[in-house]
Amino acid sequence: MKLDETHDPALESWVESANERYAEFPIQNLPFGRFRRSGGPPRIGVAIGDQVFEIEETSLNALAARGRRAATQLRLELSRELRRGNPNPPIDRLHPMTECEMLLPFDIGDYTDFYASIHHATSVGKMMRPDNPLLPNYKWVPIGYHGRASSVVVSGTPVHRPSGQIQQGSDAPVFAPSRQLDYECEVGFFIGSGNALGEPIPIAEAEDHLFGFCLLNDWSARDIQRWEYQPLGPFLAKSFATTISPWVVTLDALEPFRKPTAARPEGDPAPLPHLTGGDAFDITVEVWMRSAKMERLIRLSQTWFDQMYWNPAQMIAHHASNGCNLRPGDLLGSGTVSGPGRNALADERGCLLEITQRGTEPVELPTGEKRTFLEDGDEVHLRGYCERDGFRRIGFGGCRGTLVP
Amino acid sequence: MKLDETHDPALESWVESANERYAEFPIQNLPFGRFRRSGGPPRIGVAIGDQVFEIEETSLNALAARGRRAATQLRLELSRELRRGNPNPPIDRLHPMTECEMLLPFDIGDYTDFYASIHHATSVGKMMRPDNPLLPNYKWVPIGYHGRASSVVVSGTPVHRPSGQIQQGSDAPVFAPSRQLDYECEVGFFIGSGNALGEPIPIAEAEDHLFGFCLLNDWSARDIQRWEYQPLGPFLAKSFATTISPWVVTLDALEPFRKPTAARPEGDPAPLPHLTGGDAFDITVEVWMRSAKMERLIRLSQTWFDQMYWNPAQMIAHHASNGCNLRPGDLLGSGTVSGPGRNALADERGCLLEITQRGTEPVELPTGEKRTFLEDGDEVHLRGYCERDGFRRIGFGGCRGTLVP
Repeated sequence: MKLDETHDPALESWVESANERYAEFPIQNLPFGRFRRSGGPPRIGVAIGDQVFEIEETSLNALAARGRRAATQLRLELSRELRRGNPNPPIDRLHPMTECEMLLPFDIGDYTDFYASIHHATSVGKMMRPDNPLLPNYKWVPIGYHGRASSVVVSGTPVHRPSGQIQQGSDAPVFAPSRQLDYECEVGFFIGSGNALGEPIPIAEAEDHLFGFCLLNDWSARDIQRWEYQPLGPFLAKSFATTISPWVVTLDALEPFRKPTAARPEGDPAPLPHLTGGDAFDITVEVWMRSAKMERLIRLSQTWFDQMYWNPAQMIAHHASNGCNLRPGDLLGSGTVSGPGRNALADERGCLLEITQRGTEPVELPTGEKRTFLEDGDEVHLRGYCERDGFRRIGFGGCRGTLVP
Repeated sequence: MKLDETHDPALESWVESANERYAEFPIQNLPFGRFRRSGGPPRIGVAIGDQVFEIEETSLNALAARGRRAATQLRLELSRELRRGNPNPPIDRLHPMTECEMLLPFDIGDYTDFYASIHHATSVGKMMRPDNPLLPNYKWVPIGYHGRASSVVVSGTPVHRPSGQIQQGSDAPVFAPSRQLDYECEVGFFIGSGNALGEPIPIAEAEDHLFGFCLLNDWSARDIQRWEYQPLGPFLAKSFATTISPWVVTLDALEPFRKPTAARPEGDPAPLPHLTGGDAFDITVEVWMRSAKMERLIRLSQTWFDQMYWNPAQMIAHHASNGCNLRPGDLLGSGTVSGPGRNALADERGCLLEITQRGTEPVELPTGEKRTFLEDGDEVHLRGYCERDGFRRIGFGGCRGTLVP
């Protein structure tokens, strides 16, 4: 753990809203984002309390390209600038969040989606291949696939229900709106400095290429996916929309929540040497939803990012192990974050496919409505945060989207 | 067929090299590309004979975004400017190709690779799934997957042999350099004007979104692919490099070579209504190679793009059928262009996996060397052209890459 003065839980800001106990954005967080005000040009800022603090950067891609040290140094300077006691607080650089339109934080060159939760892979695998839920490569290879970068949208963007080919039984497929629209609750992470084509990233250096984290909803049309996915993987079942939260929580802000990757169960193979390394990060992620008839969001699940079978450093090192070049601002998704099932307090499964067992066990909402998959007008809201005794709570801000016809 | 004055085979240019009988770039072609001279800034031009004719465009993405009519109009103006008889030939805008470094023509936002040759899908499927070569979705869905945009490189860029996880029999996998490095001979095509997220492209309009064509070598590490590809498709087996030819042959230049998509064999289902339409394009593609010991390239195969099961309009309409937004400059690959086998003159199979039957039937080179897959130092050269009585031959220029350790 590389803690420094920016993690001191006693630090307070002259932006008073940042000092509230459950503030998502205390001075210990300082996530980066891109915003604009009343249709003006895009600007870069950090979140502090209920304000956006504008900074002099032209783009987060350019900042990310300067490497981990530059981002660390900038965060330290911003921490000092925003601390209570600064004799000349630059209040003219503060903008109320309510007046800021958040944009995608990065220009995303490539988006890759992994499948790093063994609990998710097992329970979904059981539905697709009952006789063979977890394929033989799973414990060796951090399974991933290229996603669609163009349809990554920022939190708040409406999501159109896609149409696609749907096939049932031995009938001919029909082209129709998906009837099995699902969310997938994931953690996303952005690449900082990149690597040259042909030059792998050693796992010991992988975290130096990790700029920070967001929440990611990998909307999925299960019926389209089932028909299209063989042999080349998911395509149109995913590419209609992927929603991310607008604030990028840096690796630095998460240092207090770093922990060793959980030991693998007895009998599982050790990762190969080029994938041995990296840490887990203890991020709680939750799925909340409401139908058009509901006034309040209800929580559908709560789960933990440190339960993943593969950690971010392993995913980065694997991705670049063939020489593939990662570029600043590239987005990697973890895959659905699911735990083994239900605990006493909450469901740990990060998508409806798992929760409703492919639609056979509907969820009942407080209005009496039932859900197997999402209906038009449903809003899905992902939340994420880190908590640990002796440290300030770090929030991710929300990742939300409403399904429209 | 929408022929106009630019297709007149009698047209000649004041650039004499364009008038030679087998010139790749006669005045009837005028493909667009991006180049620079002695390390200067990137510029846009069209190929004419052995020259590059510089034009006033800042980027091909911007030109593509203006739509099909704008590109058609520009090609007409350039045709008139370059014709013999122009009283003021702008010779100062000509640069010898040998002095131009070609760059990627577009900033490629997303790259998608299809699998549109039923001959290729059947013969490869047989190796991966002997009991089930062609999956039930193949004749309904133009199968495709998202590829990696960052590692698309222009012709001439050396290709590094990737390392990856390779598994044999029931042994644990090892991380090692691929020993089954293959090429795949494909036709690529670029998107012109895009569509908004959530708004599909009707098939009748699909060709209006097609800017033009190139050749594409989808380098593939077969041993890495076999171990990683289930259940989410190819990933590191492909993302180490994809080589494209630098010149984009416009849809307009290919009008004389448009033809109806071949009738489907008796018993095959008709495409669903949203995929009924579009034409095939009669492009001959060839694979040539030479080892480090060989002086000359030899031809390994010759095949035809009009034999594909799905045409470009069908691939575009399918891609956007779920509302996925295509953007100007996005690259789509056709998948390996293979015919049913061998004809009297040439092998029609577009990759070594097929030609050598997964390495069991080696190819013998003139030097006596044998190839199951590629060796370091091997150079692969794709060529493409269109020929038809009464029209000038349209060439694609080469797409080449040499494998390095």
